[in-house]
Amino acid sequence: MTNDNWYIEHFQPTGSAIGYRITGKLDEVQSPFQKIEIYNTTDWGKLMIIDGAVMLTTRDNFFYHEMISHPVLFTHAAPKRVVIIGGGDCGTLREVLKHPGVESATQCDIDEQVTRMSEKYFPELCDSNSDPRAELLFDDGVAYMANCPAGSVDVVIVDSTDPVGPAEGLFNKAFYESCFRALKDDGILVQQSESPLALLDLIKEMRAEMGKAGFTTFKTLPFPQPCYPTGWWSVTLARKSGGFDFRQDDAANKGFETLYYTAPLHTGVLVSPPFVAKVLGE
Amino acid sequence: MTNDNWYIEHFQPTGSAIGYRITGKLDEVQSPFQKIEIYNTTDWGKLMIIDGAVMLTTRDNFFYHEMISHPVLFTHAAPKRVVIIGGGDCGTLREVLKHPGVESATQCDIDEQVTRMSEKYFPELCDSNSDPRAELLFDDGVAYMANCPAGSVDVVIVDSTDPVGPAEGLFNKAFYESCFRALKDDGILVQQSESPLALLDLIKEMRAEMGKAGFTTFKTLPFPQPCYPTGWWSVTLARKSGGFDFRQDDAANKGFETLYYTAPLHTGVLVSPPFVAKVLGE
Repeated sequence: MTNDNWYIEHFQPTGSAIGYRITGKLDEVQSPFQKIEIYNTTDWGKLMIIDGAVMLTTRDNFFYHEMISHPVLFTHAAPKRVVIIGGGDCGTLREVLKHPGVESATQCDIDEQVTRMSEKYFPELCDSNSDPRAELLFDDGVAYMANCPAGSVDVVIVDSTDPVGPAEGLFNKAFYESCFRALKDDGILVQQSESPLALLDLIKEMRAEMGKAGFTTFKTLPFPQPCYPTGWWSVTLARKSGGFDFRQDDAANKGFETLYYTAPLHTGVLVSPPFVAKVLGE
Repeated sequence: MTNDNWYIEHFQPTGSAIGYRITGKLDEVQSPFQKIEIYNTTDWGKLMIIDGAVMLTTRDNFFYHEMISHPVLFTHAAPKRVVIIGGGDCGTLREVLKHPGVESATQCDIDEQVTRMSEKYFPELCDSNSDPRAELLFDDGVAYMANCPAGSVDVVIVDSTDPVGPAEGLFNKAFYESCFRALKDDGILVQQSESPLALLDLIKEMRAEMGKAGFTTFKTLPFPQPCYPTGWWSVTLARKSGGFDFRQDDAANKGFETLYYTAPLHTGVLVSPPFVAKVLGE
């Protein structure tokens, strides 16, 4: 909803709103799946909205893209084959390909228009799209994972919109079973898991669905994300078995730049805040 | 600004907005210093607004109150005498008095009405107001610190509103000189220091002013605070000399409950995110 020169998203599930001061709308496209809008803001660079929900801003997307990528990649012992479901803005792909050990990263987003808009308005996120290790597909992520050869993937990253609309099928047992099958025995699934403050029940349900698909161990990592409801967001890691040994030395000597992610930060969030631990039964 | 049944704060300095779905206004008082309003929300309990700025909600104030109290108290070797400047909602006082080693805690807020409103609408924050170690003053914090005996205080906590209006005098060299003088040699000043994402220049200026007053070492700790601009906030610690040795074992065995604060979390934020470190010259 636009109010004067502010774009305000009134997020009904949490009863809270977040918005930005804008100077105008730059673009709008109705894809076969969703409406994508681009605004210019006074302080946050470009703003992408999908079906009325804030997706990212130029200024603050690094929190999310770093935290959905580096913790899982520094937890897996040696990730070589990575699949990104969703992630059409290409920011996650860029972070993943900062890891020299990654040999191939396939991004499968159902909506090509998200990537086309990102190339135009967030070109810095698309820096690695022409990396020879990158493969960009525009297809149904549910079908892609269902057809993925068994035991072929080290890390699956589910970088999707909220669990309504096009992304609904990425939050249930059937999809997680496909991920479980596609992952090697030591593989890890990571998924954006909404606000750990206001949507903890959703995280709990998500972990329950992952559990029904066979995953046995879970870790939810919180991080700031100013443009998402409550400004505090999370990713949830799931493994077939075993714990979440963190390659701390490798993270401390990662050899590439990040804006938010550090090894000490990663260690710090491995223990959940007490109120989160209580709800999640940790 | 109220839009339908939402209270939206349009925060001009960051060009971003945060708001809550409300069911009605419960109270309003114009004190000699500021206008205080209380709303009921659908999902966040009560909401306190001061001069149009969101101060706290029932649901999410624990982040701030825990992070302005426990990191500094677990950094000082043995804090006995604590002064809180501002803090009229009494939530910081409550956290401070969870530390059994604290022998006295004086809260000096210029506006008695903030405390009266808190007692009425946020009674859980006032749980420790009748603790024999607590002293509640309603007076000018600048004058209080200027008149404080030299070398008498272990920890000064500046829990104020933004550096405009009544709190403006709490962000400059003159005030910090009073704090410096009142603190013992191993004393620590901690102050809420706004958004480490969007207001980093303000944090830099604040640290510069503290430096002019004689403080030599600084540490800015970020934490989520959904109801403040950008949803990510900070406190800044300042010492006369020496580092910020963290009493990690004491924090891990603290013997009282917190909702957000943990020892590993504290350790994790001791290293600033790279983009923060760069601006602050760490």
